[in-house]
Amino acid sequence: MNKIKPRTPSGFPEYLPDEQIEFNRLMSIIRNTYELYGFSPIDTPDLELSDILLTKSGGETEQQVYRFTKGSNDLTMRFDLTVPLARYTAQHEGELVFPFRRYHIGKVHRGERAQAGRFREFYQCDIDVIGSDNVAIDAEMPAVINDIFEKFNFGEFTIRINNRLVLNGFFEGIGINDNISKNVLRIIDKIEKISREDFLGELKKEALDESQIAKIIEFTNITGSNHEIINKLEDLGVESDNFQLGVNKLRQLIDLMTKMGIPENRFKVDLKIARGLDYYTGTVYETFLNDYPEIGSVCSGGRYDDLASHYTNSKLPGVGISIGLSRLFYKLRELDIVKPKAISPAKIVVIPLDNNQFNYAIKATDLIRKNHKSVILYSETGAIKKKMRYADRMGFDFAILIGEDEVKNNSVSIKNMHSSESATVSFSKLADFVNHI
Amino acid sequence: MNKIKPRTPSGFPEYLPDEQIEFNRLMSIIRNTYELYGFSPIDTPDLELSDILLTKSGGETEQQVYRFTKGSNDLTMRFDLTVPLARYTAQHEGELVFPFRRYHIGKVHRGERAQAGRFREFYQCDIDVIGSDNVAIDAEMPAVINDIFEKFNFGEFTIRINNRLVLNGFFEGIGINDNISKNVLRIIDKIEKISREDFLGELKKEALDESQIAKIIEFTNITGSNHEIINKLEDLGVESDNFQLGVNKLRQLIDLMTKMGIPENRFKVDLKIARGLDYYTGTVYETFLNDYPEIGSVCSGGRYDDLASHYTNSKLPGVGISIGLSRLFYKLRELDIVKPKAISPAKIVVIPLDNNQFNYAIKATDLIRKNHKSVILYSETGAIKKKMRYADRMGFDFAILIGEDEVKNNSVSIKNMHSSESATVSFSKLADFVNHI
Repeated sequence: MNKIKPRTPSGFPEYLPDEQIEFNRLMSIIRNTYELYGFSPIDTPDLELSDILLTKSGGETEQQVYRFTKGSNDLTMRFDLTVPLARYTAQHEGELVFPFRRYHIGKVHRGERAQAGRFREFYQCDIDVIGSDNVAIDAEMPAVINDIFEKFNFGEFTIRINNRLVLNGFFEGIGINDNISKNVLRIIDKIEKISREDFLGELKKEALDESQIAKIIEFTNITGSNHEIINKLEDLGVESDNFQLGVNKLRQLIDLMTKMGIPENRFKVDLKIARGLDYYTGTVYETFLNDYPEIGSVCSGGRYDDLASHYTNSKLPGVGISIGLSRLFYKLRELDIVKPKAISPAKIVVIPLDNNQFNYAIKATDLIRKNHKSVILYSETGAIKKKMRYADRMGFDFAILIGEDEVKNNSVSIKNMHSSESATVSFSKLADFVNHI
Repeated sequence: MNKIKPRTPSGFPEYLPDEQIEFNRLMSIIRNTYELYGFSPIDTPDLELSDILLTKSGGETEQQVYRFTKGSNDLTMRFDLTVPLARYTAQHEGELVFPFRRYHIGKVHRGERAQAGRFREFYQCDIDVIGSDNVAIDAEMPAVINDIFEKFNFGEFTIRINNRLVLNGFFEGIGINDNISKNVLRIIDKIEKISREDFLGELKKEALDESQIAKIIEFTNITGSNHEIINKLEDLGVESDNFQLGVNKLRQLIDLMTKMGIPENRFKVDLKIARGLDYYTGTVYETFLNDYPEIGSVCSGGRYDDLASHYTNSKLPGVGISIGLSRLFYKLRELDIVKPKAISPAKIVVIPLDNNQFNYAIKATDLIRKNHKSVILYSETGAIKKKMRYADRMGFDFAILIGEDEVKNNSVSIKNMHSSESATVSFSKLADFVNHI
């Protein structure tokens, strides 16, 4: 029979078991931390009705989604977890308790051009709090980020924060209208990627007067500690209520983040962060690994005024963050920061030397599982060499060998697979040994 | 603005947080048990190339899948986890260690007609061991089932086992050819759903002689304990090597299952179980909840000779089982056996009575989290009544209330939300209290 070459479509990541175990370990850290902060899980369908999912999209989103019809249904695979959250919250509004704290870890799909580190199928790990405009919630988001990245242990990291009201109020205060401010935001957004000359050149292309350009430059030049930046903002003398509100919120945020135990060196007011043009209305976040800035932001988010205006008249303000785990994992693997360790959740294998010891081996295996340790009972027949080769390739920490003598003496031989040392212990001591692994 | 009615396509289940937490709890039991037996996780793409996924399917499968083209790709959403496993194993054959033990928990999609309890999107939870034809592995599958359903605690259950070699060998031995045996299998398969007369009537429609029909009736009439059934099979005097092999395997299986600690009353040889016509070649399993037979089989599987013949020349025998968790959950909810309990992973809420106590409340919350307990810091302002109403609706076990007195006395008030009893304890005793919840 002709064979079909086994392969996956390009842009759809898939791991070998050792990588998968490491990926899952990181995902567990995220899930456990989200739960520690009292976020409730939700899980929405991978497919939504297209009129639900594509409400606010222009042509660009339409091109990037997997959309098709089946029977009478026009369906689209979700491309993020935010639109499904909006639909979910509006649909179940009467049954939810607000503020509604939810986490959602799931795959999303984008039919864009596949390239290294940019996937068509990837995991997002989101939290949001809906129905509160309290700045304390804004401070909780970086507290969660701080906990997760501390547990990840990829070195130091910096959470950059800003408030869209500061940006919008600043433009308002110096008399720049909405259309132009969008362009200026775009220019500011890429300030770190372009030269000083290009930055000025691009500004001069906009309909701005000299004093406005001077103010923008003054604004983007603000540096210092978090409190110094706040003070300098106030010294700018920008006449705008939004600006004042934004600066106040930013000051409160910094204050609360410190009280919530986030070390001062781990967060930084960064006035250049805007995070897209339309969606966010208040606090915005980006997170960078200090030693690997080339990865870009590893966790971003922000506050929005109105989550679900397409589906409900209720105004639902909220704030959320998202970790793009698939991309982060890819980059960390590429940089060799994440290293797969084990190819099995079991650290122990039980090996009967021949079939006469099989029943005894079952007893040993059973005992180990009753002590909540993962273990594999090796049941293939063959030479001891073949059995040890399996134990070796699987990377177990311990092989429990059972031969004629062990059965006779009611004992087991325990081989440390790393040091190759062996010890014989009585069967009654096996539980003790296992509990100390 | 016109609002779009928020809704999901029919056949795509979605839960409120309290149901989701219960669903996730059951899924964790499955995952943890799979890992306890040393199965490694894999996670394949939701979308596969259509030529990979639809190799062996006829028109029926084609109609039931979500298939579409995007750019130059002809893609299909996976409809089970077995075909992706075959593709994965063939693709990564050189990098895997055999016997390859994998678990896979993920969503699959079928575009069939949606009806109650039959979903278009649902979770499957599979384990398989590839590359071994050892009957000890066949016995491990029901050992895993036994562990999981014991932990589920839905009452007693029965794992029905059979071996396809017994059925095939029996037909061979009494001289029924392949084509007719397929029809007879179909008739036997529905023996419990049709009357005795209909059963005989259907048999008579096939090209069978009187003595063959008599043998089939004798075969399907075999009852007794597991060992009695095996003995009666041997007494049938069927002349077929396959039959003898099947009966021997079944005897070994029963023996090993008992040694692996599965109580005798939880498994039963059932000669009528065939589990489809083509795929399985050896041991087959079905599992029923004794108190809820109307649910049908809640965990099924079996042994196959050759997993991935479409993709590789290597012969890969294996054995596996699958739990269809979405359907099981739906049925158990319908029967009110599964009851959602909490709508948050947090059992504790910290409530500052007014804003002056907020910093102290942060300290308390932080302490609770450092002791690995999930907690929500309530940060909305407002009357105490509103705050207690939130605590009540969320179903927390404890509310930690912090007012002026508590801050002054360096204490916290702990209210048991179920009994309404309150106690004041010093802040230094809070960790102690939390660790005893």
